[in-house]
Formats: sequence, structure tokens, C-alpha cells
Amino acid sequence: MITSLEKLQEELKKSSFNAVLVSSNPNIIYLTNYSGFSKEEREAFLFIVKDEQYVLTDARYAEEVKRLIPDFKLIEISSKNSLNQILQMLKLKHKIKKIGIEENNLRVSEYKNLTKLFKNTFHYGGLHSLRSNKTLDEIFKIEKACKLGDKTYNYILKELRVGISEKQLAVKIEMFLKENLADISFTPIVAFGKNSAVPHHVPSDDKLANKQIVLLDFGVKLNNYCSDMTRTVYFGYAPDEFKKMYNIVLESQAQAIKHLKSLVANHKSIPAKDIDKVARDYIISKGYPGIPHSLGHGIGIEVHETPHLSPKSKDILKEGMVFSIEPGIYIPNFGGVRIEDLVVLTKKGPKLLTHSPKNLIEI
Amino acid sequence: MITSLEKLQEELKKSSFNAVLVSSNPNIIYLTNYSGFSKEEREAFLFIVKDEQYVLTDARYAEEVKRLIPDFKLIEISSKNSLNQILQMLKLKHKIKKIGIEENNLRVSEYKNLTKLFKNTFHYGGLHSLRSNKTLDEIFKIEKACKLGDKTYNYILKELRVGISEKQLAVKIEMFLKENLADISFTPIVAFGKNSAVPHHVPSDDKLANKQIVLLDFGVKLNNYCSDMTRTVYFGYAPDEFKKMYNIVLESQAQAIKHLKSLVANHKSIPAKDIDKVARDYIISKGYPGIPHSLGHGIGIEVHETPHLSPKSKDILKEGMVFSIEPGIYIPNFGGVRIEDLVVLTKKGPKLLTHSPKNLIEI
Repeated sequence: MITSLEKLQEELKKSSFNAVLVSSNPNIIYLTNYSGFSKEEREAFLFIVKDEQYVLTDARYAEEVKRLIPDFKLIEISSKNSLNQILQMLKLKHKIKKIGIEENNLRVSEYKNLTKLFKNTFHYGGLHSLRSNKTLDEIFKIEKACKLGDKTYNYILKELRVGISEKQLAVKIEMFLKENLADISFTPIVAFGKNSAVPHHVPSDDKLANKQIVLLDFGVKLNNYCSDMTRTVYFGYAPDEFKKMYNIVLESQAQAIKHLKSLVANHKSIPAKDIDKVARDYIISKGYPGIPHSLGHGIGIEVHETPHLSPKSKDILKEGMVFSIEPGIYIPNFGGVRIEDLVVLTKKGPKLLTHSPKNLIEI
Repeated sequence: MITSLEKLQEELKKSSFNAVLVSSNPNIIYLTNYSGFSKEEREAFLFIVKDEQYVLTDARYAEEVKRLIPDFKLIEISSKNSLNQILQMLKLKHKIKKIGIEENNLRVSEYKNLTKLFKNTFHYGGLHSLRSNKTLDEIFKIEKACKLGDKTYNYILKELRVGISEKQLAVKIEMFLKENLADISFTPIVAFGKNSAVPHHVPSDDKLANKQIVLLDFGVKLNNYCSDMTRTVYFGYAPDEFKKMYNIVLESQAQAIKHLKSLVANHKSIPAKDIDKVARDYIISKGYPGIPHSLGHGIGIEVHETPHLSPKSKDILKEGMVFSIEPGIYIPNFGGVRIEDLVVLTKKGPKLLTHSPKNLIEI
């Protein structure tokens, strides 16, 4: 099986770049499978040329890097061998004229330093499209994260009771995952009642009362890969207005998946924006406001990756891509409904990775 | 009481900068007390001029920002009002000629955009020194985090048993804090036996056995402020070699604190590197290798802040600063001892904020 590193090096061979300096943590994880470096502080770089690859990091990580990333040559950054000295050495050794950087990640101070050494420094965005094309191993990891997500949902429904706060419920999700030696992939969205009308509501101290909508949007991080799922249930007997909204959102998702399936069956190109449009138009056709966010997003090492399923997206959906389909209706001062699942696009069409029930649940 | 924002604006008035674009999450928290923005993704900027201050963020945060940061004017970034358009408007309105940025935080792509609008863009580092000078309210918050740290230590000692892994213990620390509605301030260092010889050991699946060193280095994040503490205990009856190392590390810390006290009492300037030297020299004088890290670091919203207590530091320790004092001895293939406490520097000298016992504990 060709590794992600080999894929990158193949791309480099076809490009005018002599090297890429990889700085973002997700791309380091993608190329090395090693996730021990800090997400917040800069602790390492990868330096990739067409036929060689290096990890530049400090002594703290030396042993682990040698053991876990043996395919990469380790160069230790220290007071005696500064990052600048190392880059200067690599520049000479590999005759680097043009180097790629991650402009969305590299800091200005780092860039100013780098451009003193390398006159031809340009953005290299190739890793994003590589990452959107998942291997079977990656899909398997996301599937495992989704399974644990389903288990978490099952658990958290039992914790719903009058008086529990959104924050408390969010913490329960996180603790359940930690007990399962996993983590959250983002701060869970827990929204009761009217709060569910805010798509990205931040959990508050508001307490659950009878006759309230409960919107739960959370994800699992397991073995470096993320899941993401949203379910909306009703705490009490659901009023007709909620039921109506719920069924329209559910049908809008079904329509999007159906359209995706038919395009795959007919071997047609699948513009991401077309799938977005199917779900969006269905909701509008029923007299509700359009979805105030995109229909979906790619997912993998990060919660939000290529492709983007939105009205302005230029992405084309392809086999091996994993993404969310998450239509929603939000009515200020009433509440909202969102239903989100992950799918992987296969030769046979979209395959669901999240399996939590979607019939209307009244608790 | 003068706010952190007012302090910054006072500094701006004395400088040649017309504005500062604040992008890093810790500095946004420092100036607004609001910590709802993502640590990993860019979700907001502050735009500060001498007599006005703005939050630039998207619709998701609008309501909360209006409610929780009323002193700042909210400008919503949207597809109709892009960040560039907003900055252009602010530039004209406030006649901005020279703007400060955080070069250690701003991304290259953001910088390239910004320099199209503002020709005079320079690094503004003033917030670091402002943040090192803590207010009573900030010290109080750190003290509360330290108290919860002491409580956590007390709890975690009871969880030590044969067969528990370093990772499991690290997760227990994290879960205990989440149950107390706090968080870890960094991934806990839990090191058994020989692993304790690695100062920044990453918790592994290694299991606790009898007659092993247990090094615990962890911190609490509570109300946006961090604590940090290290204790080293022995699981079983400690051998003489461990006892010797332990007492030397403990005495080295005591010497550093004593020296700090005498300099304060004599109203002398206190170069941070002098305090580092006292502890370091003491350990070396006893025939052990020097400390392979700095003696201490400032702490507050971030775990590592100004001042730096290291041999090359140029920082001067002043009243109101909060920092760690953490000498250590590390013997490869045997193990290590580190003892770390936080102190706040007051008129009367250093005052300890962490209070967990430091007598040699055998479990």
C-alpha cells in the first residue's frame, strides 16, 4: 500500500517544488501517524524532499520519534544546532531552490526567518486534496470513531433529566469518551429549548426542563481520527410543529443521500454544491428558511476538511471521501432541528458510518 | 482598578503604533476575559486603538460577545462584510498608519492580506510584559487553580496501585478536574520508574510496579488561569539513592526561595537568571548533573509565560509576577526527581501558591 508520504513525494516529483516544510499538526499526523506533538505550541517540523524525509524536533521527542517514525531521519533542534542552521544544511545538501510552506499555519516570525534562507518560498496546498482521498485504513479508523459516537449517544440519552445543565451534559460526553480512552473531536454542542435555534450554540448553565428540544452535536477522536454526529430529540411529548420540522429535516437528508446515490450509479461527476442544493431546496420548498450553514464538510484527522458541501463549493465528490450531511431548520425563539451523519463515498454510492436511530425520539 | 485594556491603551499612547491587531487566544482572553473562541481555529480578532476597541468575529458569537464584552464594539465578519472590508473601514476611520501585530501568532496568509492594506505592519510584543505583571484578581484566580491542584494531588495519590498505567493515571487526573468543572492546563506528565529520568516524559502504557519512582507533573485550568505543580514520590520503601536525590532537589528549591527572599528584603533588583543559578549550582555542588531545563517559568493564562528563570534569561523578577520554581535531578536508567511549586512575588518576598506536602512520601 502506498503511504501518504509516498503520495506527497510523487506529487513533489511532478511539481516545481524541491521541498515542503510541513508545520501543521494535522499534516504531521497525516504523514507520520505520530500525534505526540503539541497542538498549540510549535514543537516540530517535517522537511520533505522527493526522496528523503526529516523530522526536526527537540531532545524531548528524540527517543519516541526514533522508535515510532523510523522512516524519517531525526534532526534534533538544540541551542547548538538551531532550526536555522539545520535548514541551511538541508538547503545545501538537497540543493533547494523552491520550498513549499503551509501559509495557513506558519507564523509571521517563522516566515520572516525562513525567507532569509529561501528566496523562493510559496504556499503548498497539495496536502489538503491528498487528505480528502481516504485510504481503507483511514476509513476504518473513522468508522471506529463513529461506532464509539453511537455508543456515547446511547449513553447520553439516559442521562437526560430535569435540571441537568447543557454544560454538565457536555462534560458527561467528554468524560464518557475519556473513560473509553478516546477524546472529543470538538467541544460538544448541547442546546436545550430555544438555544437549539443557534446552530453553533455554546453549552451554557441553562437547565433542562420538560417540553424542550434537546440538540446534541458531538464528535469522537480515536486513533487520531474524528467522528461527528448530530441528533435532535424531544424531552416530553413533541408538539406538532417540532414533528413537522423534524420530518422535513430527515427527508431533506434522505433526498441528498438519494441524489448522491443516483449520481454514483450513473457514473456522473458529483459537484459538492449540487448535493447541498438538493437538501437546501427541499427545506425551502416546505416553507422554511434555508440552512444557515453548509450542508456538510469533509472529516478525518480534522473535524473540518476538504470537501465542502456548500452553495459556493467547487469541490467534486469522489470515491474515498468521507463527509457529513447535516441539514437543519432553525426558528428563533422556538428552536431548531439538525440531523447529521457521516458517509463514505464508495463505488456503490454513499455508505453511512453513523448508525444512531433517526426516528423521532420523545423522552 | 485599571483594566488590562486600559493598560494596553496607555502603552499605545506612548508608542508610535496607532493600532494593534490582537489575534492570539491568550491575549484575547487577557483583554476581554472571554474565552469562548476556539484555541485552534481563527475565530476572532481584537482591533485596539488608543481610545476605542473592537471585536471582529462572526455571527455565531455575536450574542455572547455583546452580552459578555460590552466594552468592545462588535463588528460582524460575514460574506457581505469581509475581514478586509472591516479593516479598510477601521483604517480610514482611525487614520491608521502603523499597526502592531503578533508575529508569533499571525499566519502567513493573514499577514500577506494585512500588508496589502497596511504598509507599516510591525511586531507588537508589549502584551507579554503587561501580562507578567499580575493583578490581585489574577493572582487570586491562579491561587484557586493551585488549591484545586493540591486537592487533585491528594486524590491521585490514593489511586496509585500495582498495575495501573501512566496513561490511566493521567486520564484520572483529567477526569477529576472535569468533574470539578475545571480542566488540565497541559497533558499531565506521569512517569514511573526509569521513565522519570525523562523530564518531559509522555504518559505511556507502562504499568506501576513495586519499588518505583512516581513523578507527577500536572496543572489545572480554572477560570482561564493555570496552575502547575510537580511532586515525586516512591511506591514502596525508597532506596537511599532516591532519598539522597530527593533531599538535594528539595534543598535546592529551598535555597532558591531563600535567595529570592533576601533580595526582596534588601530591595535589590532580581535578575531571574540569578535565582536559576542558585538552585542549579547547589545541585552541581552535590555531584549531580545540572538541571537539563530552566528552573522556572511565568504562568497565568498560559502555562508558559514571561518571566523565564533560566541561565540566559534577561528577565527581572518583580512584584506581582507568578512563576514556578522546579529544580530536578535526572539519572538515565535510574530515574528522576523534580519538585515544582508556584510562587507569587510580593513586597514581603515569594509566597507559595501550591501547598501539597514535600516531605518524602513512601507509599
